[in-house]
This record gives sequence, C-alpha cells and structure tokens, in this order.
Amino acid sequence: MKIIIIGLGLIGGSIAKTLSNSEDFEILAFDSDQSSIKNALDKKSIQGSLHSLDDLVNPEYENSLVIITTPPSATNRILRSLEFLFNSSITITDTTSTKSFLKKTLQEFSFPKNFIFSHPVAGSHLSGEKNSVADLFNGKSTILSYHDLVESKHVDRVTNLWNILGSKITVLDADLHDQIFAYSSHLPHVAAYALLNTLKGLEQDDLSDFSGGGLGEFLRLASSSPEMWADIFSMNETNISIAIDDLIKSLEILKDKIGKDPNSLKTFLVELKNFKESNF
Amino acid sequence: MKIIIIGLGLIGGSIAKTLSNSEDFEILAFDSDQSSIKNALDKKSIQGSLHSLDDLVNPEYENSLVIITTPPSATNRILRSLEFLFNSSITITDTTSTKSFLKKTLQEFSFPKNFIFSHPVAGSHLSGEKNSVADLFNGKSTILSYHDLVESKHVDRVTNLWNILGSKITVLDADLHDQIFAYSSHLPHVAAYALLNTLKGLEQDDLSDFSGGGLGEFLRLASSSPEMWADIFSMNETNISIAIDDLIKSLEILKDKIGKDPNSLKTFLVELKNFKESNF
Repeated sequence: MKIIIIGLGLIGGSIAKTLSNSEDFEILAFDSDQSSIKNALDKKSIQGSLHSLDDLVNPEYENSLVIITTPPSATNRILRSLEFLFNSSITITDTTSTKSFLKKTLQEFSFPKNFIFSHPVAGSHLSGEKNSVADLFNGKSTILSYHDLVESKHVDRVTNLWNILGSKITVLDADLHDQIFAYSSHLPHVAAYALLNTLKGLEQDDLSDFSGGGLGEFLRLASSSPEMWADIFSMNETNISIAIDDLIKSLEILKDKIGKDPNSLKTFLVELKNFKESNF
Repeated sequence: MKIIIIGLGLIGGSIAKTLSNSEDFEILAFDSDQSSIKNALDKKSIQGSLHSLDDLVNPEYENSLVIITTPPSATNRILRSLEFLFNSSITITDTTSTKSFLKKTLQEFSFPKNFIFSHPVAGSHLSGEKNSVADLFNGKSTILSYHDLVESKHVDRVTNLWNILGSKITVLDADLHDQIFAYSSHLPHVAAYALLNTLKGLEQDDLSDFSGGGLGEFLRLASSSPEMWADIFSMNETNISIAIDDLIKSLEILKDKIGKDPNSLKTFLVELKNFKESNF
C-alpha cells in the first residue's frame, strides 16, 4: 500500500522511519522543504516524493493512505486543497491535536466518507524531520475520531496504521477530544508560558541559581515550537479560555488555603498528590 | 571537626554520605527516627549519634558545626531549643528554602553571631534518609545569608562546608531570598498543584492517555513531600500570594492574546521561549 505523508517534520518523519522497516508499504512524501525530503531519501525512510498534491488524482494512488502531518492551520488549508479526493478510495487522516475547527471544514463538504481524525499523543520539544525517530508512537496513545458516515474500510486502514506504529488506540468524539485536550495538554503549556512571563517580569539575573531541577522540567513544555503552539492555542481558543479560567480558580483556592491552617493545606496537597499518583 | 546533623532525611543524609569520604570530619546525627540513624550507622555515613541536643553543651563539641536539616517549622522549633548555643564557638546553620520567619526568631535573640542561613538548591521528589545520595549538592547552587553581626570564622566554616560539598555559593539578603524563591521555586510548585486540582475537577477517566510526556514532568513537582510543601507555602505566605497574583495576571494576558491575532501570539511565545533559553 502507498502511504503519502504530507509535511515531513517530526511526526511525518517519525511515521516514515517506523514504517520503512516494513515491505508492505511504499512511503512517499510531500514537503515544500526539499532538504527534509532529501534527508529522508538519503536515509531511505521514504522511497520517493510527490512534486504536487494534484498527482494524487492519478489511478496509481487508488486505495492509498494520505497522512497530513502539518500543524493545525496548514492541515486545514491542505484538507481544503484535497477536496478532489473526498469520498474517493483514498483514505485521508491528519495528526493534529485540535479537531473542532477541522470538523467545521469537513461539515462544509457534508463529511467526506474517507476522512478520519488521528491524534498521536507523542512528540518532543524538538521539531523537524532531522529530530524524527522510529518508535516515536510505540506504547503511546493515539485518539481517533470519525463521523458516522465514514466507511469502515477507511477506519480499518487508519486503525491498522496506528496499530503497526505501536499505539494504544482510543476512539473519541472530535468536540470532546478538544475539550479534554484543552485541559490535559494545552493548559499545561499555557501554564508554562505564563510562568515564564511571570519570571521574565522579575528582571532578576541568575534565576537558574535560584531554582531546582523541577523548574527546568516544567519549563521544557515551553521549548516546543512557538509556531505550532500559537496555532494550537488559536484553533482551540474557546476550550482553552475555559480551562485557563478553571486554573485561575484553582490558584485562588490554593492562595486562600496557604493563608489559613497549615494542616488543612497539607491535607489538600496530599489529596492532589494521591490524584496525581492514581492518574499519571 | 565535628559535624552534627539534626534531622537525618534526604538533605541531612546526603550531606553525611558526601562528607563520610573525608577524614577531616567526625559526623554525628540526631533524629527521633532511630531507623534513619541505624541505617546511616550501618552504611558508615555517620560515626555516631546524639541522644539529646543538650549534649552539645559538652566541651568536646566546641568549634563544631551544627546543621539543622529539618523542614521549616521544625527548624524554627529546633533553633529556639538551641538558644544555649547562641554566640558560642559552635557554628549553626540550616538548610530550609524559606528564611524570613527564621530571621524573626533570630531577631528575638538579637541576631546570634554564630548563625548562618544555608539553602542548598538541590533535592529530589523522593524524601528520607533512604533516598539520600552522595554528591546531591555537587554543581548545584547554595544560597547563604547572614547578619552583619555574624563572626567571619562562622561564615568561613559554613562556606567551607558547601565548597567541600561542591556547591556554587551565592550570598543573598534573607528577605530578598524569600521574594526570589517565591517565584523561582515555590510558584512552580503552586502551579503544579493548581493544575492537578483543575484536572481532578474534570472527573475524566484515563487522563494519562490524553496527555504527552510533558505533563508528567510538570506534575512531578507535586510528587514531593506534601508536609514539606505545606510548611514552605505557609512560611512564605506573603511572597507566594504576590507571586500567585502575578501568575494569574500572566494567565489573563495569555488568554487575551489567544483570542486575538495568531501572529502576535506567536511573537509573544517566541519571546518567552527565548527568555527560557537564555535563563534556564
């Protein structure tokens, strides 16, 4: 089966590297950055590249799998440009961490029967094809979402892909996906950026001398690509705003408890630690 | 020289383990938990123990170094109980991460000439003597604070201790110490607990499937001892309250920017990432 990866960055490059060990797939890529393509060809993680997405109309691509692995807003543009593939034998999936805005686009096209949302919950604070690794998805969670109209052969193809990549698959409604990830993934990144903004405001030299290793781990969330995160935040704005308000409420609760009885504060922190240890 | 460690936990145990390789020191410990004492004696990280702190009045302890390595409020109680050593030949230091409340106690005693604040910026989310390690302080920062009245021989003794332990020493005013650490160390812990409280409120199963590795690193800050952190938060309440208010302001700024132009949001995130990379 042909697999066409659109956008050969960390995610696309890692999919290519993992699948390149299998003889079941012919892996082709499309990326405006020719150095990523050349790099992947040199390392034999892809077997060829497309000069134009219009080539996908060619019969040789029938029953292939197209994976769009670009950031959210580019994914939206590319999805629109692939209108000529909607309801064809080709399966299309994405890998972004926000879904509702793409769902609106799909709705305009009456929900193509061959599009499935994928969100591999895997990544790195490093980005780009050069940082891609085989096994990035092994043992990690991948969330799939799809409309009732989607044909089962397309669902099977995407499910099979993530199974081969070693992911643990969960199926979730696209809107619920965005609500949950606003809290579980986007909010921690917002918190890391907010903390950096607070520390920046101090104008204090040698801050790293005054912080333990834990702060560095925390702030590493803000080392990811700002382009990607600006895009994710904007695309999931409504849910993230609600999540930020909830975090502010929790900070107010903590501030209140810190000003009161140390014993009840301790009990509160113990409960939170227990919650962490049961869930993460 | 005799070194007496009061409170044989992670910090005290690690000091003992590092110094036990040197023949220059006789390391003794005091702890109500006899299993920690026994463990350290078995491993030869200490050479003996004290049955009572009152023994320190004995002439054999002249010119020794007493290190209180208990959490903040216990340190305050112990410091008061050591009044009989104030302005003696014995040097006394602590290892807590909040100083202002201890400074108030010292003020009651007109600032003893033999007390120096130490804050080794090193630790672990694990606690207790059983988790102590040699070299915990090697390459890490240690902050010293002392009153103008303190005699230089005591400063030299404490400086020498942290030099031998491999720390990079910074001298800082005790109140400024507490203001800076409210932001650089205490606030990230508050943020991790607040995020946990927000996630707990979701009542969503399988949350770990919906979060990347970054969240786990972030939340690891909340794995430390709740007893210790309830104590630290309470002891540095005023500064932490101000820091929480500043973090809430930063969250509001981010929320506002997320709702506006994605390009200016991206520029803002790039600035924060650059600040992180220059400082941490």
